[in-house]
Amino acid sequence: MVETWAISGVDLHVDLSGTRVREALERSLRDAVQTGRLTPGTLLPPSRALAGDLGIARNTVAEAYGQLVGEGWLTARQGSGTRVATQPALPAPAGPVTAVPAPAIRYDLRAGYPDLTSFPRGEWLAACRSALNTMPADALGYDQPHGRAELRTALATYLARARGVRANADAIVVCAGFTHALWLLGRALRHRGARAIGVEAYGHQRHRDVLTDTGLRVVALPVDADGATPAGLDNLDAVLLTPAHQFPTGAVLSARRRIEFAAWAAKSGGVVIEDDYDGEFRYDRRALGAMQALAPNDVVYAGTASKTLAPGLRLAWLVVPTRLMSAVVGSQAAVDSRTAVLDQLTLAEFIDSGRYDRHIRRSRLAYRHRRDRLVATLARRVPGGTVRGLPAGLQVLLDLPAGRHETDVVAHAAARELAVEGLATYAADGTEHTPALVIGYGTPPPHAYTTALARLSATLTEAP
Amino acid sequence: MVETWAISGVDLHVDLSGTRVREALERSLRDAVQTGRLTPGTLLPPSRALAGDLGIARNTVAEAYGQLVGEGWLTARQGSGTRVATQPALPAPAGPVTAVPAPAIRYDLRAGYPDLTSFPRGEWLAACRSALNTMPADALGYDQPHGRAELRTALATYLARARGVRANADAIVVCAGFTHALWLLGRALRHRGARAIGVEAYGHQRHRDVLTDTGLRVVALPVDADGATPAGLDNLDAVLLTPAHQFPTGAVLSARRRIEFAAWAAKSGGVVIEDDYDGEFRYDRRALGAMQALAPNDVVYAGTASKTLAPGLRLAWLVVPTRLMSAVVGSQAAVDSRTAVLDQLTLAEFIDSGRYDRHIRRSRLAYRHRRDRLVATLARRVPGGTVRGLPAGLQVLLDLPAGRHETDVVAHAAARELAVEGLATYAADGTEHTPALVIGYGTPPPHAYTTALARLSATLTEAP
Repeated sequence: MVETWAISGVDLHVDLSGTRVREALERSLRDAVQTGRLTPGTLLPPSRALAGDLGIARNTVAEAYGQLVGEGWLTARQGSGTRVATQPALPAPAGPVTAVPAPAIRYDLRAGYPDLTSFPRGEWLAACRSALNTMPADALGYDQPHGRAELRTALATYLARARGVRANADAIVVCAGFTHALWLLGRALRHRGARAIGVEAYGHQRHRDVLTDTGLRVVALPVDADGATPAGLDNLDAVLLTPAHQFPTGAVLSARRRIEFAAWAAKSGGVVIEDDYDGEFRYDRRALGAMQALAPNDVVYAGTASKTLAPGLRLAWLVVPTRLMSAVVGSQAAVDSRTAVLDQLTLAEFIDSGRYDRHIRRSRLAYRHRRDRLVATLARRVPGGTVRGLPAGLQVLLDLPAGRHETDVVAHAAARELAVEGLATYAADGTEHTPALVIGYGTPPPHAYTTALARLSATLTEAP
Repeated sequence: MVETWAISGVDLHVDLSGTRVREALERSLRDAVQTGRLTPGTLLPPSRALAGDLGIARNTVAEAYGQLVGEGWLTARQGSGTRVATQPALPAPAGPVTAVPAPAIRYDLRAGYPDLTSFPRGEWLAACRSALNTMPADALGYDQPHGRAELRTALATYLARARGVRANADAIVVCAGFTHALWLLGRALRHRGARAIGVEAYGHQRHRDVLTDTGLRVVALPVDADGATPAGLDNLDAVLLTPAHQFPTGAVLSARRRIEFAAWAAKSGGVVIEDDYDGEFRYDRRALGAMQALAPNDVVYAGTASKTLAPGLRLAWLVVPTRLMSAVVGSQAAVDSRTAVLDQLTLAEFIDSGRYDRHIRRSRLAYRHRRDRLVATLARRVPGGTVRGLPAGLQVLLDLPAGRHETDVVAHAAARELAVEGLATYAADGTEHTPALVIGYGTPPPHAYTTALARLSATLTEAP
């Protein structure tokens, strides 16, 4: 088998086995087009260049091209070169069935997303340019598993200032989003002998699944107006909490319960994971600092850029107590799922330059305005519906008027091309609750928000 | 506990519990400086702005600032505002001991790195700008676990054209580097019941560790001048091979052995993982295409941008046979270690615009030149040393002259501030070999290459 690199224009892999070179070239190219290796529209190298690369006569290439144009595999137009034709029906390549697309939705009021249209593209690019221009070349090599020092330092300063976290750069581990962070933590806890973790009875099923995948038994803790209940802790090795703003009910974990969870951890050696997913978005004057400051030796603080910037950045961070650090870094090293250096340096620059603070302040005003409009609309249009939870974050919980059922309301909304979810979507198995909707007001782009609210009102006011 | 957001200038988290507001503010700020939550040099909000945010009198803030300036915690200079002082000795924050830096090395001839100084920063930024300007907003949301369609499509076209891979976009999974890809594969194989995987007797210890971590038993396959030996396959469920260019010995896997491995896989249901880590860098005319084309239903093809661009990008890709696809995607979803959307779109743009081909061609010429210089230098200066392996990739294997030992040569090199590794570094436990050096000629920046070669020659020619 003699094969060759063609290095003119594009890299083209051609098999020239056999003695008759023109036929071999024709066969190689035909086979490449037939099997889809060369896709329709691909520009082939000029015959002179390909001939040079292959070490054969130019005429041989020109004749092979001509033959394949005649057969319809290639097209040649004066001045635009020889290309793979778009006509021939290619055999469908083998592969998995592509996921079925979700049903048509024009208005999305599901929770968990920020407004992606407000992502500061220009400012992110500027920070990326700065990072690219200033980073040393060796930053592009293999990084430490806990992340770049520049980002860990920027985060330590920011978290101390904005969230009251007791952080230093050496205690921070950069992760590819909170769910990834949770997997690393679950694996680390399991390796240290943990068996069971408590989670709030309402939360993301994904989080429960990820913890189960690491080998932990997941136990639901009841949630009320004071947040998660510290009950049955004797049988647990860790708990996952959303103290600042329970997701999705909106409760704040009361000071008394914070102290109870912290006391349990101190006494039992247990670990509290504080998921501070939207701690930056509080719309009244009263914001509780991170619970981590109460018990920095027992609380793992977790923050993310998924709500403040965008989930697609895949950037989150843990502040890890010393006693857990080597296990968490060990998890990261074992899986080798570090995030890209340039992204880390871009976020560090974004924070250090003040762009992150400015973007959060802009977003906070916009989301506060959206929440106010939502609450006012519901109060005016939906008698009997009650909004629960703090003025914070990107979602509210709406208790449905008497006689309405979650599944019916969700189905009626879907008929109006509106996506919204019932509280049942977030409930752990066996959890009972009165019918309620989780309404994410961050998701729609600004131009769609008014219509989304109108369709929500219409859905909620139509006859049950 | 009453706490407050300060939204002027910076986000500042202040605890105003208690009845005497000025004292509470002083205490909060003092505590924040003492504990390191506010770091030296941080600019505090102007007193008027902070007072407005806190809903207290401006004088109260001014007096608190004045008190803390008097105590030395803050500094105030006319025109530059009030800042956290750099003087006070802060208590050392608790945290893990930072990793001990490697010994001083000025010249690095270890394998596994490309020349990081040649990373095309400007072109990467241009591709990033294009991606940022053209991506739809919803691209910034949560992506599918196998990666963005734009990148998978670009890779399918590129891999078919340049490496002869039988690929289509639906068969591709984007990963955060090859080691991450290997972990995902190992986990997927283990979940399908695999117990043992064969690896080449020479290779990265990291790869063996990652496979062991997934629960697989790792068995070494002997390596000779025809690559890995297909021996003892009956007891294996999978093998990890570097067919194009055995790492680090430089052998190419012979056509006969490719067929033997493929036949074993077809008969036994086994899986071949083809690590095509440097398939783009072949310096002679004869390049074998990817082994995957021989047996696309049994071979997982793995490629990476770590050698062609930089490891810090954390971008690699798998072409996965249909029968393994759901298990591999399931691994990725379970750990949720997807790579950033913007990086994926940037690489797609980098490939589609022809920048990737051009960069590879430039790099190929540069590395070929480096290899030629290395081989010529060794031939001239190191009698008895024999270079093994194909003219390809970023490293050569040098059999040491009779009487020289790897560890001595490595130590002598280190005394010259030169890093180089013996073949033993890459040998699986129990593998025996004659003394040899693995010389990575991609690593030094261009200006350091001449000196690196001179120091290598001097090391090798000094008295044993």
